[in-house]
Formats: sequence, C-alpha cells, structure tokens
Amino acid sequence: MDRYDVAIIGTGAAGLSAAINSKVRNKNIILFGTKELSYKLAKAPKINNYLGFYNLTGSELKDEFKKHLESMDITITEEKVNNVYAMGDYFALMVNDKMYEASALILATGVEYTKPLAGEEKLLGKGVGYCATCDAPLYKNKIVTIIGYNKDAEEEANYVNELASKVYYIPMYKGEYKVQDGIEVINKKPIEIVGEAKVEKVILEDCELVTDGVFVLKDSISPSQLVPGLEVKEGHISVDRLMKTNIEGCFAAGDCVGKPYQYIKAAGEGQIAALTAVSYLDSKK
Amino acid sequence: MDRYDVAIIGTGAAGLSAAINSKVRNKNIILFGTKELSYKLAKAPKINNYLGFYNLTGSELKDEFKKHLESMDITITEEKVNNVYAMGDYFALMVNDKMYEASALILATGVEYTKPLAGEEKLLGKGVGYCATCDAPLYKNKIVTIIGYNKDAEEEANYVNELASKVYYIPMYKGEYKVQDGIEVINKKPIEIVGEAKVEKVILEDCELVTDGVFVLKDSISPSQLVPGLEVKEGHISVDRLMKTNIEGCFAAGDCVGKPYQYIKAAGEGQIAALTAVSYLDSKK
Ligand SMILES: Cc1cc2nc3c(=O)[nH]c(=O)nc-3n(C[C@H](O)[C@H](O)[C@H](O)COP(=O)(O)OP(=O)(O)OC[C@H]3O[C@@H](n4cnc5c(N)ncnc54)[C@H](O)[C@@H]3O)c2cc1C
Ligand SMILES: Cc1cc2nc3c(=O)[nH]c(=O)nc-3n(C[C@H](O)[C@H](O)[C@H](O)COP(=O)(O)OP(=O)(O)OC[C@H]3O[C@@H](n4cnc5c(N)ncnc54)[C@H](O)[C@@H]3O)c2cc1C
Repeated sequence: MDRYDVAIIGTGAAGLSAAINSKVRNKNIILFGTKELSYKLAKAPKINNYLGFYNLTGSELKDEFKKHLESMDITITEEKVNNVYAMGDYFALMVNDKMYEASALILATGVEYTKPLAGEEKLLGKGVGYCATCDAPLYKNKIVTIIGYNKDAEEEANYVNELASKVYYIPMYKGEYKVQDGIEVINKKPIEIVGEAKVEKVILEDCELVTDGVFVLKDSISPSQLVPGLEVKEGHISVDRLMKTNIEGCFAAGDCVGKPYQYIKAAGEGQIAALTAVSYLDSKK
Repeated sequence: MDRYDVAIIGTGAAGLSAAINSKVRNKNIILFGTKELSYKLAKAPKINNYLGFYNLTGSELKDEFKKHLESMDITITEEKVNNVYAMGDYFALMVNDKMYEASALILATGVEYTKPLAGEEKLLGKGVGYCATCDAPLYKNKIVTIIGYNKDAEEEANYVNELASKVYYIPMYKGEYKVQDGIEVINKKPIEIVGEAKVEKVILEDCELVTDGVFVLKDSISPSQLVPGLEVKEGHISVDRLMKTNIEGCFAAGDCVGKPYQYIKAAGEGQIAALTAVSYLDSKK
C-alpha cells in the first residue's frame, strides 16, 4: 500500500490551506472531503473579512479556492473518513471498506453545530454509535434506530437493514428520503436516548421506540470519536501554537480547534499545521 | 483629542487583516504604517501559499490588499509610532511630535532580521537608543554616534546634529546618503558597543569612536522598546491563542508573535486579534 506523507481530513479553508502548504513543500498528500469543499463556504451570503477578497459570495470564494487547488494539481478524495488509528510511526485511516496510510495527519474537520441529544454522550459506546457501517455487525438480529442528519445516512440504514432484525429510520432533514422496504420511517423528533448500562429506548415527541442500538449520523464525527485518544476540551481539539495535538504526528486546524469560527483564521492555522507536519516528517528522516 | 476604538501598528498582512476585521465590526480605527504596506510583501518574487491566490508576485498581492482597503474606506496613517504607553483604560501612541489615543491596541510590527550588535542590548537605555528624535535632548553638547539601517536615519542624524557637539553617522545600507555638513560619515562596519555603567565607545573594524550615545536606527523598533512592560520571549511578543498579550487591551499578531513567518498565518492572527479586541471593547461598555 502507498503510504502518503500527509493525510488531511476536511476541505474547508483549514484543510485546503494545509494541502497547498504541504504540496508547496513537496509532500505527497491525500486530501479527504468533498468537491463542494464545505457547505459553510458555499452557503455564506457575503464575505468581506478575508484579506485580499472583498464582497464575494461564499460560492465565488469557493471558486477561487478551487482554482488554486487545480493550479497545483491537488485532487480531492471524496470519501468520509470513519476512524483513524495512530500506529506509532504512521496513521491508518479507515474509509468504509478501504484503508489508507499516512506518516502525518492533519485534522481540519470543522465543527458540527448540532447539539447532542439528551443521553447521547452518556451512552456513547454503550449502544450509541456514529458509524453504522463500522459497527453494524454488533447488531445482527437486533433492533437498531438510525437518526440521520443528511441523505448519506440512508445508505447506512440500508446496510444495517441487511443484518438487523428491525431498523427504525428517523430523518432529521427536510426533503425526500428513500430507504429500503422493511425499514420503518419515523417522522417524529427524538428527545432523549435512555438506558443504564446500555441503550434501552429512544423517546420521541409522543411515543418511544424500544431499541438495542442507536446510530446518530451527522455531517461530521466528533474528533475524539474519529481519532481515539485525541485530547479534546469543551468540544475543541487541544493544540499548541504550532497546531500540535497530544498525539505525535497529528496536527489540527480551523474551527475544530476553537473560536473564532472564521475562514482566514482557519486558513492561517492550516498553514501552520502543514509547516509543523513538514518539520515533523523531516525530523524523522 | 479623538480617541479611536482600535489603533493598529503595522501594514503587513497581520495589520491589514486586523484593520478590515475591526472595521467590519464597526470600530473606529487608526492604522499606522506605509502606503507601500510592507517591503516584505512588495519584494516577494512569487507567492503560491496564500489560499485563494496562486502564482502572484508580492507586488500583485499587495495590489489586491490595497483594493480591499479602498473598498472598505480604510486609510493608512503614514507615520512611525515611536512609543506606546498603557494608561489604564486607553493607550497613548507617540508619533514624533504628535500623540494619538486608542482604547485598544493591536501590534502587527513584523520582525526585524538584523541581529543586535554586541553590547547593544546590554547598554540599551544606558546610552543606546532606538529613537533619536525622542532622546536627542539628552545629548545636548555631547558626542553621538548614529548607526543607520535605512535612509530615514539621515533625517534623524540631521536633527541630532542641531543639539550634539559632534555626530558620527555610520550608514549600514548601500547607495547614496546625504547628511548635513558637520556630520562625520564613517564607512566602516561597527563590531561592538562598549561601556560599563554607560556607553563609552563604538568599536569598528579597525578603529574606535569615543561617544556618549549611540542610536541604532532600524526599520522596526523592538516590541519591548515600543511598548514598555510588554512581555517578550526570545524576540517574540508572548500571546495566548486569542492573541492577548500580558497588557490588558493590547493584542498582537503576525511575525512579531512567532514563527512560521508567513502571510496567511499573519492574516489569520490579525483577524483573531481584531475580534478579541472587539470583545474587549464591548465588555467595557
Ligand atoms: C452561513 C455561514 C456564513 C459564514 N460567513 C462567514 C464570513 O463571512 N466570514 C468568515 O470568516 N467566516 C464565515 N463563516 C464561518 C466559516 O464558514 C468557518 O469558520 C469555516 O468554514 C471554517 O473552516 P474549516 O476548514 O475549519 O471547517 P469547515 O469549513 O467546516 O470544513 C470542514 C470540512 O471537513 C469535512 N469533514 C468533516 N469530517 C470529515 C471526515 N470524517 N471525513 C472527510 N471529510 C470530513 C466536512 O464535510 C467539511 O467539508 C460562515 C459560516 C456559515 C455557516
Ligand atoms: C523576500 C521575501 C519573500 C517572502 N515570501 C513569502 C511567501 O511566498 N509566502 C509567505 O507566506 N510568506 C513569505 N514571506 C514572509 C512574509 O513576508 C511575512 O511573514 C509577512 O510579511 C509577515 O506579515 P506581518 O504583517 O506580520 O509583518 P510585516 O509584513 O513585516 O509588516 C510589518 C509592518 O509594520 C510596520 N511597522 C513596524 N513597526 C512600526 C512602527 N513602530 N510604526 C509604524 N509601522 C511600523 C513595518 O514598516 C511593516 O510595514 C517572504 C518574506 C520575504 C522577505
């Protein structure tokens, strides 16, 4: 298997800046995210505070960023990284059924604004999970509830449905949804996940579902869930001024490391993370 | 006297980003620097690592920054700030014979690459100074040596010459120089400033000059010289992740707070400094 010098997770301003700065230093990189870059970029109505660009829409700034990537032959691997394991001198990145390896890792995953449900954090790992395709085998012939915050969750529900005895699907987004026959769609707002040693049920507005497991499928996975052992404080990855995390070879930048939540702050930190990663790689030679 | 909300010192990427971000938040600002913005910007041959711009010369990027300032009606006050005093709830900025006041201060002065001369730091304040126009009166009828790193120093030498009994001028730059008659120009490299309780002489390559005072006139003044009481570590202003210095209401960003020395890192930090300054101002209301 190819081992990349630097794997970068996230295609917002932080991840893109990390990518161009690693590439400028001749590193062999892999960049995970989406071709749309970041919905927080695409959706911004008007941006005036990114030095050098005035009065652009998010979508126009996105186009400038894309041009920059193209000029430097940087491609985006359109995959969601489910888990990363620190293996000592490299990182193993799990992407559904594939695995990638990289010597250094830069996390630029942004922040998720959705608040956890009552009981969600308490029961995490005790029946609550964030990656259905990873943990589905645990629920063979059991009852599973899937709370999906976006359309990608539908595919995960279908996958779980092939193993579980029963699947409830609770869509948290507007618009169409399409899941396999046999999956029961529940159009009610979940209030709480309940259980003692493990998940017992999900309480909805005016009813409850008895269930063995709950998958909460948001746009982004919490950083400590993504990289086991990563130090997180009040929802943000802990970093020093050089963007080092507590794990050797792992760096982080952008909204995921703290406020203010802004583009050029994220881009500046992405640059620092890349340059620190480059020094780290060079020191290992 | 008008009191500004925020005074920003420096027109590199850090100071400019601080200015646009303070202005976006409706603050009344004053920005000190030069219309050329920063020689470190103007002189860069090719910039590829500022997200959104690819393959620009420094001078082209400078033009984009200038357009941004103009669109937001931000003007530059072309003055060198000599000293800043923290007065409790405001800052007093000394600019030759003028004074400005501001409630919050952002330092974005960059770093000076010139190393101090042997003896320079030891004798600072004991005959060594960085602002001839400020301290000249101390040298009435005395012998003064001026080590000038740029043409601006010539004017300061002329001013001192009106008071001192003797002025030596050591130009450290290439090209023409033009100082008043009576000033003795010494075209030799200075090696060391010598003295015990106070400056006694300057040692040059193959001779020495007996002198009462030495002014070392570089492009930028060291931060702790600029703002008395400011905490500096290994040449960089100490800041936390929100760009706060040890002085309340005083923030810093860019090369002056530490490596890596890069544009977008500086711009990101300028933004953070501005937003922290804005919260600081709002908390005082
Ligand atoms: C409507 C709106 C308007 C805004 N306007 C402004 C503005 O005018 N000025 C300003 O400075 N800021 C603005 N912001 C804030 C700005 O959008 C954020 O600060 C910025 O996007 C942060 O960049 P980032 O790179 O840290 O994260 P993000 O932009 O959130 O990017 C993170 C990326 O990582 C991807 N990702 C996460 N986890 C994984 C994974 N496991 N595998 C693969 N990919 C993953 C995500 O899909 C996403 O693409 C605005 C935000 C919003 C929502
Ligand atoms: C030749 C060259 C090429 C470079 N190429 C790149 C590159 O490709 N990519 C990259 O990212 N970085 C590059 N850099 C580094 C980059 O120039 C710096 O990191 C960046 O300029 C730092 O910005 P700053 O705002 O912190 O400080 P500066 O750009 O140094 O600006 C500081 C400003 O403050 C002013 N100032 C200082 N003291 C005072 C005072 N007392 N009163 C009033 N004004 C004051 C100065 O005159 C100056 O204008 C290059 C540097 C050089 C020299």
